[in-house]
Amino acid sequence: MPTSALALSRVRAAYARIDEVNRPEIWIGLRPRSELEDEARALGPRLAAGEFLPLAGRLLAVKGNIDVAGLPTTAGCPSYAYAPEADATAVARLRAAGALVIGTTNLDQFATGLVGTRSPYGAVRSAHDPDRVSGGSSSGSAVAVALGIADLALGTDTAGSGRIPAAFNGIVGLKPTYGLVPTDGVVPACASLDCVTVFARTLPEAEAALALMMSPTPRPLPARAPGPWRIAVPSTGQLGELDPGWAAACTSAADRLRAAGAVLRPVDLTPFTRAAAMLYEGAFVAERYTAVGTFVDGGSPDLDPAVAAVIGAARDIPAHQLFADLDRLAALRTSAMAALGDADALLLPTAPGHPSLADVAADPLGANARLGRFTNSTNLFGLCAVAVPAGEVAGLPFGVMLVGPAGTDERLPRIADLLAPPVHLAVMGAHLTGEPLNLQLLSLGARLVRTTTTAAAYRLYALATAPPKPGLVRADTGGAAVETEIWELPAEGLGVLAAALPHPMTLGRVDLADGTTATGFLCEPYAVDGAVDITEHGGWRAYRAAASAARGSHRPGRHPTEL
Amino acid sequence: MPTSALALSRVRAAYARIDEVNRPEIWIGLRPRSELEDEARALGPRLAAGEFLPLAGRLLAVKGNIDVAGLPTTAGCPSYAYAPEADATAVARLRAAGALVIGTTNLDQFATGLVGTRSPYGAVRSAHDPDRVSGGSSSGSAVAVALGIADLALGTDTAGSGRIPAAFNGIVGLKPTYGLVPTDGVVPACASLDCVTVFARTLPEAEAALALMMSPTPRPLPARAPGPWRIAVPSTGQLGELDPGWAAACTSAADRLRAAGAVLRPVDLTPFTRAAAMLYEGAFVAERYTAVGTFVDGGSPDLDPAVAAVIGAARDIPAHQLFADLDRLAALRTSAMAALGDADALLLPTAPGHPSLADVAADPLGANARLGRFTNSTNLFGLCAVAVPAGEVAGLPFGVMLVGPAGTDERLPRIADLLAPPVHLAVMGAHLTGEPLNLQLLSLGARLVRTTTTAAAYRLYALATAPPKPGLVRADTGGAAVETEIWELPAEGLGVLAAALPHPMTLGRVDLADGTTATGFLCEPYAVDGAVDITEHGGWRAYRAAASAARGSHRPGRHPTEL
Repeated sequence: MPTSALALSRVRAAYARIDEVNRPEIWIGLRPRSELEDEARALGPRLAAGEFLPLAGRLLAVKGNIDVAGLPTTAGCPSYAYAPEADATAVARLRAAGALVIGTTNLDQFATGLVGTRSPYGAVRSAHDPDRVSGGSSSGSAVAVALGIADLALGTDTAGSGRIPAAFNGIVGLKPTYGLVPTDGVVPACASLDCVTVFARTLPEAEAALALMMSPTPRPLPARAPGPWRIAVPSTGQLGELDPGWAAACTSAADRLRAAGAVLRPVDLTPFTRAAAMLYEGAFVAERYTAVGTFVDGGSPDLDPAVAAVIGAARDIPAHQLFADLDRLAALRTSAMAALGDADALLLPTAPGHPSLADVAADPLGANARLGRFTNSTNLFGLCAVAVPAGEVAGLPFGVMLVGPAGTDERLPRIADLLAPPVHLAVMGAHLTGEPLNLQLLSLGARLVRTTTTAAAYRLYALATAPPKPGLVRADTGGAAVETEIWELPAEGLGVLAAALPHPMTLGRVDLADGTTATGFLCEPYAVDGAVDITEHGGWRAYRAAASAARGSHRPGRHPTEL
Repeated sequence: MPTSALALSRVRAAYARIDEVNRPEIWIGLRPRSELEDEARALGPRLAAGEFLPLAGRLLAVKGNIDVAGLPTTAGCPSYAYAPEADATAVARLRAAGALVIGTTNLDQFATGLVGTRSPYGAVRSAHDPDRVSGGSSSGSAVAVALGIADLALGTDTAGSGRIPAAFNGIVGLKPTYGLVPTDGVVPACASLDCVTVFARTLPEAEAALALMMSPTPRPLPARAPGPWRIAVPSTGQLGELDPGWAAACTSAADRLRAAGAVLRPVDLTPFTRAAAMLYEGAFVAERYTAVGTFVDGGSPDLDPAVAAVIGAARDIPAHQLFADLDRLAALRTSAMAALGDADALLLPTAPGHPSLADVAADPLGANARLGRFTNSTNLFGLCAVAVPAGEVAGLPFGVMLVGPAGTDERLPRIADLLAPPVHLAVMGAHLTGEPLNLQLLSLGARLVRTTTTAAAYRLYALATAPPKPGLVRADTGGAAVETEIWELPAEGLGVLAAALPHPMTLGRVDLADGTTATGFLCEPYAVDGAVDITEHGGWRAYRAAASAARGSHRPGRHPTEL
């Protein structure tokens, strides 16, 4: 289908999804569907004219503190709103690459908060549990992506606003090194710390968007001593109180990195948590007063009470305290960098826990402050970070963060890739060790992890395929156990295999002898009509050996082009 | 299964495979199976003792010009052989990480050749076509990996010896920046150019091995202007004469990079091809005489005639010619670097064509010289390169190379990743746009590419699943066309989907209305017993709409946790 038609289809699906999910609090300025349809129709001619449109038709949501021409910039405060003359540079660069801006999103007012509830436009609820907060301050952006409305979204991050909502909604958040993405057209929170961030459902999508937003100035990547990735992992004790199950989930993520070949090393988290505590407790919050203090002092009725309290209180912080805090921060940074040494990244849970809306209502400042325990220090130390999903705890997303040295924005996603668990495949026929298609598994990066049998619930048939293969079919009665090997391989390898499946082979869930299940080879029902039932042999190898003995001949030689 | 048991199984499978493939020319020094079995058994205790063994049980083949303690180093010349006192550092580092050395491999004698036939141990034949050469000089190493005997193999590369055989055998070859991997314990070809290289069937496996071989000295990665990958692509005309179909395959690879978001730019290949021609035609070949000229002059009977001719003739090259050639090379390098500008990589076919054994026998020097057209310049210019498979031409592997600036060894594989084509998935039920599981597709990075129907050969059933899903079954007679959407997604995404398939859903090949096929959703046969045949509706959406109208109600709201 042509680009314009596909983009139109995507736009219509997104607006249908907006109606379906009924989360009006996501949006501050949702654009009319007809405008996006017009822009979608224009993509074909733009491509035909030779424009470079790697994001053609991707839907982009923009946090409400970032300028989008044609929509008011509110920063979550209606009375603060202004009409920007142009897109922020970050927005303009994505639009130039073919992204379609669907609207501006809700946020903790003035990007002051990590909860997602501090907004006169309504509290944003988690995509996965409407009783929990979305996280913030880039609340609407994260939820719009997590619910499949937008494909990409921009956020900002000063204390964790581009990462906490990624973790709570099961998506990816990239917090680039300060200065890499221009912040013109962004309402400042703390101008010396603010970064424009990107959300996406997958790491490659987020990386592609970030690559397009960066300023085209050559930047050195820090020197690195070669070798396997070196990951600093604090002890569970140093993480402090976490939600139930989160410490174990974090340990699982570390184990996964180790299994993928990374070297784990302990790290003292103290300088990080001490710096984190300084962000709101110390003098740095005065920079928020610099940004919008005069407006807040004006006492607009649509100010969020918590936000007004935080910013208003910053007016009276003396400058000598800021000098003292800067000194203290510099010392903490020295300690932190020494603690990291030549580690490529620091692995942390993105947040210590995921509060409900009720939790936050009961203790607005305390619940918020707890959330920033691991994120607050990143920007103060001038580091970059990637927040990625790392499984689930109690049915809700759990996320971890990789924090790395300034300038390692391209390196961190490669480490995050290792968090994707390998998958397993049960084979019973031509892919078994020593059989003709085993090399296909090896070529996909697979390795044998155990030998077993299916549950006693299957029939095995000799199919009329080339090379010869068995067909496994679940049987209501009269099923037997069939010899099986379990192979572990990268998900990409299983995808390549699935994409190349020939008739009549299928992949589906296979029940194993020990009560577990695995994805394994089955076959289409038509193929077993008239095929020989070989279940009695107990497996493909035994059948082949018996058939070979009966013929009085050896198996013919095999050639790799049979793959 | 415990590590030792899995490693034992792998060792036994490898030796069985050695017998099966009957390619004795791969090996110069194959170790006895019992020795590897002993080493496999020792892995469990080593792990238990706390060793870091990321390559535990991976089988490593080592090119015959690299020292392996306990085996003679021959460099492909029996009379040159010596007994090394220790492993080369590169070998030692992989063994320390748990790799098991299976043996030393055949090569073009003294690593002088790109064909794989210049050896008294026999001509090495391509893994995929025994009438074609393996490529060289790291011939046995590449074929051992391609045939699934070894998991990793070491080669060396001076003019292309670590890349040409990767291309001809459909595997990955990494040629690191000069100096990154130590070359102690390697018989020099041209000591100022030689690099130790690694072969593997997949890029992650090769990268993991390379990371373990690098010297632990911090190295800066060159500065890069942010933005999408910039790929220099020469015009097809500048590539010169290629084997039939290879120019189109190279263009396909470039198109694939563009589709993945890379920016392609033209480049003048002239300085690269001029430098390439200097490698054997100019004075640089004298360095081969420096390495082994005295031995060659001795006139051993097991010298390969072509190798002896090349090296012997280098004795009389005057030093003033070398000074002149160094000047000329410096000028060409300046032109080449200017041509690349800030490109991240140069995309080239790895070789211009794949000769048969007969082709090489008919013109030993000419056939060999042609092979190095694209690889020869890499080491002369001090660059690094990655050789990866890029599909097939006429049923044989086709490979391309990404050549990048010194120090971009970690960056090039990320560009090579983009060469992996996305895959397609046909959906007919709960994954259709607007249906409850569509978000699952979006979350895997999928995008809609077209709408169609199946071939008129299927029956559709309403299954008793939650959420409700249809079951598609191929029908011998009475089949109909069923509404279908085709989604494109990364192979990794399809793998994640396949790994999570619940009973009774399966993935298999689905025939489409236009005569093409795609991997799509089918179901296990047991699930359609007693299910309602809804084929008459023409698709899942129409059936659901009719069912909803019959109930006089709307579909209930859906919640993302249904995923």
